[in-house]
Amino acid sequence: MEGARQVSDRSQVDPFIVMDVMEQARRLEDAGRSIIHMEVGQPGTAAPQAARDGLAAAMESGALGYTVALGLPELRARIAGLYRDWYGIDLDPNRVVVTAGSSAAFLLAFTALFDAGDRVGLGLPCYPSYRQILKALSLDVVGIETQVENRYQPVAGDLPDLAGLIVASPANPTGTMLDHASMADLIGACHAQGAAFISDEIYHGLHHEGRAVSALEVSDDVYVINSFSKYFSMTGWRIGWMIVPEDHVRTIERLAQNMFICAPHASQIAALHAMDATEELEANRAVYARNRALMLDGLPKAGFDRIAPPDGAFYIYADVAHLTDDSVKFAAEILENAGVAVTPGVDFDPNRGRTTMRFSYARATADIEEGLDRLRKFMVAR
Amino acid sequence: MEGARQVSDRSQVDPFIVMDVMEQARRLEDAGRSIIHMEVGQPGTAAPQAARDGLAAAMESGALGYTVALGLPELRARIAGLYRDWYGIDLDPNRVVVTAGSSAAFLLAFTALFDAGDRVGLGLPCYPSYRQILKALSLDVVGIETQVENRYQPVAGDLPDLAGLIVASPANPTGTMLDHASMADLIGACHAQGAAFISDEIYHGLHHEGRAVSALEVSDDVYVINSFSKYFSMTGWRIGWMIVPEDHVRTIERLAQNMFICAPHASQIAALHAMDATEELEANRAVYARNRALMLDGLPKAGFDRIAPPDGAFYIYADVAHLTDDSVKFAAEILENAGVAVTPGVDFDPNRGRTTMRFSYARATADIEEGLDRLRKFMVAR
Repeated sequence: MEGARQVSDRSQVDPFIVMDVMEQARRLEDAGRSIIHMEVGQPGTAAPQAARDGLAAAMESGALGYTVALGLPELRARIAGLYRDWYGIDLDPNRVVVTAGSSAAFLLAFTALFDAGDRVGLGLPCYPSYRQILKALSLDVVGIETQVENRYQPVAGDLPDLAGLIVASPANPTGTMLDHASMADLIGACHAQGAAFISDEIYHGLHHEGRAVSALEVSDDVYVINSFSKYFSMTGWRIGWMIVPEDHVRTIERLAQNMFICAPHASQIAALHAMDATEELEANRAVYARNRALMLDGLPKAGFDRIAPPDGAFYIYADVAHLTDDSVKFAAEILENAGVAVTPGVDFDPNRGRTTMRFSYARATADIEEGLDRLRKFMVAR
Repeated sequence: MEGARQVSDRSQVDPFIVMDVMEQARRLEDAGRSIIHMEVGQPGTAAPQAARDGLAAAMESGALGYTVALGLPELRARIAGLYRDWYGIDLDPNRVVVTAGSSAAFLLAFTALFDAGDRVGLGLPCYPSYRQILKALSLDVVGIETQVENRYQPVAGDLPDLAGLIVASPANPTGTMLDHASMADLIGACHAQGAAFISDEIYHGLHHEGRAVSALEVSDDVYVINSFSKYFSMTGWRIGWMIVPEDHVRTIERLAQNMFICAPHASQIAALHAMDATEELEANRAVYARNRALMLDGLPKAGFDRIAPPDGAFYIYADVAHLTDDSVKFAAEILENAGVAVTPGVDFDPNRGRTTMRFSYARATADIEEGLDRLRKFMVAR
């Protein structure tokens, strides 16, 4: 074959449908329209002031060159301490891997655990990038359609033959959580077939009634992935972490040295300081609590009353089958006519997502109030 | 199979031998010994002051959330402008992909271009992570042993059957460059067999006689990878970029959205400001020029006189076959007895590297002088 190389098969991952919503929202805003953003999956707040101050000082006192691949030792120790504070777990800091966001943690976990062609399971609906990263790494995605009566989480008895399973609790897009028993059943079912268990705990800290259960409370033979993006309000800093079994640390270290060299040094310093900013972070959380209460009151009044149990994160996942069979078109209508950007479910669940919708309440309370008001008026007039 | 999952085959990448040197250097320093660091592959200088000032201001005026996947538009435009300034090339900013260091660029390029099992060529010696990242992505590494008379670069006539080829100019560990004709021949040979051409240009800006040639001066059907780590002195910030063919941009964008979300926002801002810090960066470069002159004078006097043409970067690659057949042991001796940390060649060229050594001159001139003095005394006494 002569000529320039074409792209690979594994690179042909699905586009994000929500990007069309965001692009259209931008166009409407450019044209002078006011748009309320219930499509975004990130806090509107900056990194804690202490994080920014700590970095500002560090920038003037050191070169901020590469760190060791697994991360600054003081940050790894501090993260280990969080497991004591949050879950009462005594965690060896040597099992903590500092990563460039949970994204890098997924790349490390998937390459460390799976060879090309391995079957990796995930519950649908889920964070869309799981599927796309798995595909880009030549892995077979096994989508498991979950049910609302199981909080849209996979169930131990229903697992197909897998090399690994990914779960998230609190989950994106549903906000639902796994309780200790369900988590233990899933881990047991995975280990019974020699499959890896990967627990995405990126929304931990953002719970509403009880706190979320960490997979580490059940077993040490799991991969736990977390991040400073959500509770710590540091999305753009690309800084997260992963806890791995002790006998996997050396493998992960070698992969991380080669695939990433290290997580961003500046972000590691900012993250270390963010962990002491409890007051500011809890104030952010109080805003989410207010927003959630408003959503739980306002969404049903607008007709969105079939929602998953909103245990945590900052999302409400609604079944809109009684309103539409085309969530993409419906989201475009809502954007155009109500001035509210929402996410159609198809990114999270390609088939069933045609009749679901995700509403985010990560932004300011005034925006949530205004958005709910617009949704109600639009739905009444529809 | 019951029980926890073991690691994958593709995760079993080689350890870095130099890590043992660095660990031993650290132990000696902890014990009070003075060690000169000629093993490190990064500048000793911080990011330019303008970069740090720019970020300090930005941290207080915005939330620094996610950017779009391909990077801040103003940074992409500024990088495109660099191609005009450095090479006289008119480059469409839409072909610029901002990445989390060159590491992320390699992950994107390799997944975009190659499917599992594809054969990807590289000249030995080379940056060790090429081989390890390729393996982690289930690709077949085809090592091509290069010759000093070809500046340790692959030669167009000798290419095996490949899906792609990676070259670096200036290269790590050799510091050698490809001239326009050699680059054009290699690109032509790749395209003749439908293979991708990936040009690692991370040491551009750090040349000594003539400037380095960009693959973009030869063809638009290439991947060019660069970084703010070396010339711009921003290793720990994990920020770089890639230029891809126009019809690959959309594929790369989707992969980047899923695999990375975006490069660190703070680093993108710092990088944008670093591009205006020409005076500070050229002062750094003048230090490398002085250091290089000292090395070219001092290394032969110490007996290291078989060196590759040091066209650029901040490395000298020496053939030490007349001194040892075990570069790892020799490096340990030099460290222990001379107090100078150097890199044995085995990380770059697993077989032939037993008789080669890399000396870095990225650090302060006073360190270089002291290191050369120690090497000379050690070699005389040996």
